[in-house]
Amino acid sequence: MRNIAILGFGVVGGGVAELITKNKREVEALGGDEIYIKYILDLRDFPDSPFADRVIHDYNIIVSDPEIDTVIEVMGGSHPAYEFTVSALKAGKNVITSNKEVVANFGDEFMALAEENGVCYRFEAAVGGGIPVLSPIISCIKQNKISEVRGILNGTTNYILTKMFSLGDTFEDSLADAQAKGYAERNPDADILGIDASRKIAILGALVTGKLVPTEKIHTEGITGVRAEDVKAAEKVGLKIKLLGRCITDGESISVTVAPFMLSSDEPLSNVSGVYNAVEVVGEPIKSVMFYGPGAGAGPTASAVVGDLMEIMRSGRSYAVPTMVKDGSCVRDFGDFECRSYVAMTGVCPECVKDAFGEVQYIAADGECAFLTSSMKEAEAEAAISALTAKGGALKSRIRLL
Amino acid sequence: MRNIAILGFGVVGGGVAELITKNKREVEALGGDEIYIKYILDLRDFPDSPFADRVIHDYNIIVSDPEIDTVIEVMGGSHPAYEFTVSALKAGKNVITSNKEVVANFGDEFMALAEENGVCYRFEAAVGGGIPVLSPIISCIKQNKISEVRGILNGTTNYILTKMFSLGDTFEDSLADAQAKGYAERNPDADILGIDASRKIAILGALVTGKLVPTEKIHTEGITGVRAEDVKAAEKVGLKIKLLGRCITDGESISVTVAPFMLSSDEPLSNVSGVYNAVEVVGEPIKSVMFYGPGAGAGPTASAVVGDLMEIMRSGRSYAVPTMVKDGSCVRDFGDFECRSYVAMTGVCPECVKDAFGEVQYIAADGECAFLTSSMKEAEAEAAISALTAKGGALKSRIRLL
Repeated sequence: MRNIAILGFGVVGGGVAELITKNKREVEALGGDEIYIKYILDLRDFPDSPFADRVIHDYNIIVSDPEIDTVIEVMGGSHPAYEFTVSALKAGKNVITSNKEVVANFGDEFMALAEENGVCYRFEAAVGGGIPVLSPIISCIKQNKISEVRGILNGTTNYILTKMFSLGDTFEDSLADAQAKGYAERNPDADILGIDASRKIAILGALVTGKLVPTEKIHTEGITGVRAEDVKAAEKVGLKIKLLGRCITDGESISVTVAPFMLSSDEPLSNVSGVYNAVEVVGEPIKSVMFYGPGAGAGPTASAVVGDLMEIMRSGRSYAVPTMVKDGSCVRDFGDFECRSYVAMTGVCPECVKDAFGEVQYIAADGECAFLTSSMKEAEAEAAISALTAKGGALKSRIRLL
Repeated sequence: MRNIAILGFGVVGGGVAELITKNKREVEALGGDEIYIKYILDLRDFPDSPFADRVIHDYNIIVSDPEIDTVIEVMGGSHPAYEFTVSALKAGKNVITSNKEVVANFGDEFMALAEENGVCYRFEAAVGGGIPVLSPIISCIKQNKISEVRGILNGTTNYILTKMFSLGDTFEDSLADAQAKGYAERNPDADILGIDASRKIAILGALVTGKLVPTEKIHTEGITGVRAEDVKAAEKVGLKIKLLGRCITDGESISVTVAPFMLSSDEPLSNVSGVYNAVEVVGEPIKSVMFYGPGAGAGPTASAVVGDLMEIMRSGRSYAVPTMVKDGSCVRDFGDFECRSYVAMTGVCPECVKDAFGEVQYIAADGECAFLTSSMKEAEAEAAISALTAKGGALKSRIRLL
């Protein structure tokens, strides 16, 4: 019998308890042992829950109970999740989390602590909700020379962008709809400003490169600047707009970005709609593989958490990542980032555009001048826009192309 | 140092040797040891290959060499792959294969032999080429109550169907194009008749249910009956046609099918185009996840084979499948298979159609009567068609809906 404790009895914590109860047969067959949820830590009481008698309010009971084998931290936020994780690992308990914030901030430290103490720290649910992503990258793909891992890592923003495309709605209306449907928080900043996605791409990048890039070193743009006009322009040339997290590496330096990108319909990520998430890994000789599924929700997230528990019960292995080291020094200057761009401006003439950007592909647009540039470095694109604004032009929008 | 032997120096065998050589750094970091390809078994010689000195023609040298740790069988076909695998496992060597035919036919026996001899038998590359599928199902998804695993498991037929949709071409023209491009064999039967897909769904089903269904018990239809007219009709109602392998289970009985299905554009599998493959797993509470990527080719297939080698080197674990048992008795009668259907007939009147099928949804079609039925059992659909043909109707096509 494995005794476990769940920290946080919210949506995910409730989902984990439910999965372990409802799928008892599958879980025991796979893990090879019975699982007993001995404690659930929460500030609240849950008198009507079947787990009412397990709910406690003092974390010390868990950490000092030698019967507790594994702690499942599904509280979210950096603190006290950080302190709880450290003390659990030091007490020789495995820790599983769905908390991307704490992994992005302290994952390197936790991995080292887990190794020191001969236990596991696993976090499959922190990226892509229920989608198996981290484990298959480590177990099935790392023999490739991986050049990029990228993904649609936030369901809220993908839902908003999908609405804007299918209905021609504005960003504001689509956000309001997402809030009404419960897909977006009342304070949606972590989603729409790209902060949530930046944590997830930091984690994905760390698995691929071994370097955990501090999120403040990640060039992060949200989707608040994406206009209905940009959606129309994209549709005219057969492109979609997706908020992507991208970690590009040449084996030495790393470029990590979160920003809206325009994608052609040939790109597998372009077909990922609504609240779904997907992660694509590009490498040699595998070319490209993609993992797709529900990026959030009680059930899928619980599936990933319990999947980690199954792996620990079966094999005791951690991710077999050599360790990840926090490293911002390997991050390439964003001015070197190279791509094509969609640009929408007013007050510019074709000759000026040609002087600044060279040959471009125009897209018919009402009252503004919209075009796709050739591939150029970020610094060059910025300089070209500055040259045009110096001549009286006004930038309405710029979105990079994948 | 790990000494390995490769059986078969064709496309995949060459890819494996190339990956191990080119990605030496990644492979050694991940596997924790150097890999030496000591033997390559083939009927031919390869005097110009960098591995010319390792090529041998006598399998006994490999099986009797105690230094050989792992045998990579990438010959294809049932024999002598079967005999070579059995003797390698009995000699205490791990075996990795990309050979779906031998796994579908004898996987149960190999798994049992591997367990008896304390070695691993792994076959990630046998389904979905380079796409991680089998390993994530076992490691990340099996705690769910899986109700179905389904997929686009054959790139050749998906290429042909994609061509028929994008260009309105006939099956014959699209097949000829696939052959000209090297995607289809000169004798394309194994692909276009669904035989290749039936082997892969047998393997996927065995991982999910523990029961390896003999392929002769799988209801298998190819794509030779899909007409340009059916493609047109599907497009009119926003559906695509894909050759799907489907294994549906209620935990007890199993329904396994390979056939063309019509899919709505909401289905993640509907967007999988060209030679790509994808596998979708449906369960509770995960809902649905999909794995997507190149289903064939030297590089991707080699990636999956070497991924298995990495897992063996790191952990020595087999798939942790309790064992799979060959079992045809659990297969549900195909007459009980329930779905909607697209039907195209001539010589029928609306009243007769209503008498036979109840209310249907008509699709405008030149010179024939095309419609979508409501959901009914296979036996009922067959009976309805028989009733119509008895009255002088002629069946032109029937394709089930997902």
